[in-house]
Amino acid sequence: MKLPRGFGASGVRAGLKKQGTDLAVIVAKGGANAAAVFTRNKFQAAPVVLSKKGLTASRGRVKVVVVNAGCANAITGPEGEAAAGRVRQAAAALAGCPQNEVFVASTGVIGVVLPDDRIREALPGAFEALSEDGLEPLSEAIMTTDNAPKVAEAAFMWNGKRARLTGVAKGAGMIHPDMATMLAFLMTDAPATPGFLAAALSAVNAISFNAISVDGDTSTNDTVLLMSSGALAGEPMTDPRREAPFLKALTKVCRELAWKIVRDGEGASRVMEITVRGARTEKEARAAAHAIGTSPLVKTALNGGDPNWGRILAAVGRSGVALSTSKVSLRAGKLWIVKDGAPTAYEEAAAAKVFALERVPLTVDLGVGSASAVLLAADLGHGYVSVNADYRS
Amino acid sequence: MKLPRGFGASGVRAGLKKQGTDLAVIVAKGGANAAAVFTRNKFQAAPVVLSKKGLTASRGRVKVVVVNAGCANAITGPEGEAAAGRVRQAAAALAGCPQNEVFVASTGVIGVVLPDDRIREALPGAFEALSEDGLEPLSEAIMTTDNAPKVAEAAFMWNGKRARLTGVAKGAGMIHPDMATMLAFLMTDAPATPGFLAAALSAVNAISFNAISVDGDTSTNDTVLLMSSGALAGEPMTDPRREAPFLKALTKVCRELAWKIVRDGEGASRVMEITVRGARTEKEARAAAHAIGTSPLVKTALNGGDPNWGRILAAVGRSGVALSTSKVSLRAGKLWIVKDGAPTAYEEAAAAKVFALERVPLTVDLGVGSASAVLLAADLGHGYVSVNADYRS
Repeated sequence: MKLPRGFGASGVRAGLKKQGTDLAVIVAKGGANAAAVFTRNKFQAAPVVLSKKGLTASRGRVKVVVVNAGCANAITGPEGEAAAGRVRQAAAALAGCPQNEVFVASTGVIGVVLPDDRIREALPGAFEALSEDGLEPLSEAIMTTDNAPKVAEAAFMWNGKRARLTGVAKGAGMIHPDMATMLAFLMTDAPATPGFLAAALSAVNAISFNAISVDGDTSTNDTVLLMSSGALAGEPMTDPRREAPFLKALTKVCRELAWKIVRDGEGASRVMEITVRGARTEKEARAAAHAIGTSPLVKTALNGGDPNWGRILAAVGRSGVALSTSKVSLRAGKLWIVKDGAPTAYEEAAAAKVFALERVPLTVDLGVGSASAVLLAADLGHGYVSVNADYRS
Repeated sequence: MKLPRGFGASGVRAGLKKQGTDLAVIVAKGGANAAAVFTRNKFQAAPVVLSKKGLTASRGRVKVVVVNAGCANAITGPEGEAAAGRVRQAAAALAGCPQNEVFVASTGVIGVVLPDDRIREALPGAFEALSEDGLEPLSEAIMTTDNAPKVAEAAFMWNGKRARLTGVAKGAGMIHPDMATMLAFLMTDAPATPGFLAAALSAVNAISFNAISVDGDTSTNDTVLLMSSGALAGEPMTDPRREAPFLKALTKVCRELAWKIVRDGEGASRVMEITVRGARTEKEARAAAHAIGTSPLVKTALNGGDPNWGRILAAVGRSGVALSTSKVSLRAGKLWIVKDGAPTAYEEAAAAKVFALERVPLTVDLGVGSASAVLLAADLGHGYVSVNADYRS
């Protein structure tokens, strides 16, 4: 799989992880327009702080992306920011671009200052290794305890030409101690303004990366970056409403990466696709779905393949959203389990069959409105405990 | 242990659980003044709906309490309410009191209508068995998967006399599928008005039963009932501010029961005592403590005895409360781990020692105010998964 035109990538070893590659570089030779979304956690890691400021200062221009695994460089105070700054400086010198056009991202243990000397030593090699065939080394170097690299691609017609969109991601949650970070990098060769990319990313993020939950914990380092090299010549895209093929491709790639993240959770055996509808507002629909998707009682029942619907409605009941107890209904797959606030005469065996699926579709109707939301959430089993409790960090 | 004067209790088998006693009765011969707090879950079980209405209609008078384990009678629609109503009617006939003076409570599987015929058959036997020595059978009959009965007592001086307060509880969370219910019944022989009892219970509940978290899920049946028989003759207590000895006794009993509930969680090996201070408001302090206490990443680290402080601060960071990232601090026991937003040079071995305690004291200072809150929260280990995932309900 070649990268979209205008991008090169590589992955090398800097020595931050115990083994394997742990430093990735993406370079847009001619620069790229870009937009990003970052974690809303109040503790934003040093690279998040720097990249956010840089992207604003460069007015949405990115030439180099430097990503390391093995150290999150989060809650590390001024020392951490200085270390991330030195990485940025070194990359800018190698690429011959302003520091603000270098985007940095880190994932790994919290509370340890980035050993930036190791990264700066490895950077020249990473630049030498840059290649349009670099997707695989890139996807491997950003892994922490992911079971497999996560890549998704789509092609779409733009201006009568075949444009491409490639995404790579790592994480999140349910992973190694302190490494619950989600990173995603998306590249297209179709030209687009930074404003267009920001609007498109915001819309699609809400129904992909923001619609998954592994353990309800959001990281200090979560970052999604969307870049357009514009290598496919033409007038840049400016209005997302007029670019349905691009939005469709972006949605497909982001949803595929999001699914891979939630499905790949260490120890996860099953994922529920929670649809909440009949809510007063979309915000309340999301809150109800989130209550179900983060309930340890629901998640353990899911792990056991147990159609334990009382836990599902009890979670909705404590979520604080408006609902009608006499109109509420619950469906697993096509099987109605609760209708108008009371259990139906469903067959236990039929329900058990739905809960044994790899992807369990659950629909809760709150009976008070017409807003809805969807959330993918992983289960909680012995594997999760083993990864997160049994091994010391 | 005898019950406070004026109360009798018993526990018998009605046949709702697979084995053992599952029906308990408390009778205040001369009636009792009472106040209760109930779950805030929108799905309130039939007994909760009935008891709430009854207590209002009787203006805080209770003569009989009927509690069953094995069936929660929650999300059971009008049929469930009718079943609970028939139990209330039968108990009122046996006690010779208005139905509104019968307080009913249930715990067990959600979504199954109470088999009230079995309870009505067993009720006469339960009334015959009533005794001032009935604390033990009462405490055993309300158990579901509790490892041990939960009882706490205190004596206090009132009007120059020795008054008594006895409490019994069951649950909660981290227990059996669908049985994450917390019930507590508190009895005193000192006379008090219903208004006094309501004010005292509300104040003490906030720092005892509402300051524990097992898995963040609140049940459809949670109930705490405080009753005064007034058997110790005299003018009833009316103003909580003037009754420090009573409040102290109530706090001691409720906190002891709350500790027993959180410590007894199936599979729980360790409890954190989370103190959040330096918050802008008490509500924000509670929200931050709750984020820590319900984070699966924090709870699994606690289970492993892993001083993984990055997870603790990341949970605070996503909780949405105001904090200063350059002033935040974290202490485990007496060991400072983070000060002014950056890690100290603490010894890993010293931190591991604190995290190996049965009760791990954690203090987070948000650095933006003077409000504080305390929460006791259980860990999350293989035992929790085994109880909640491995066995089908």
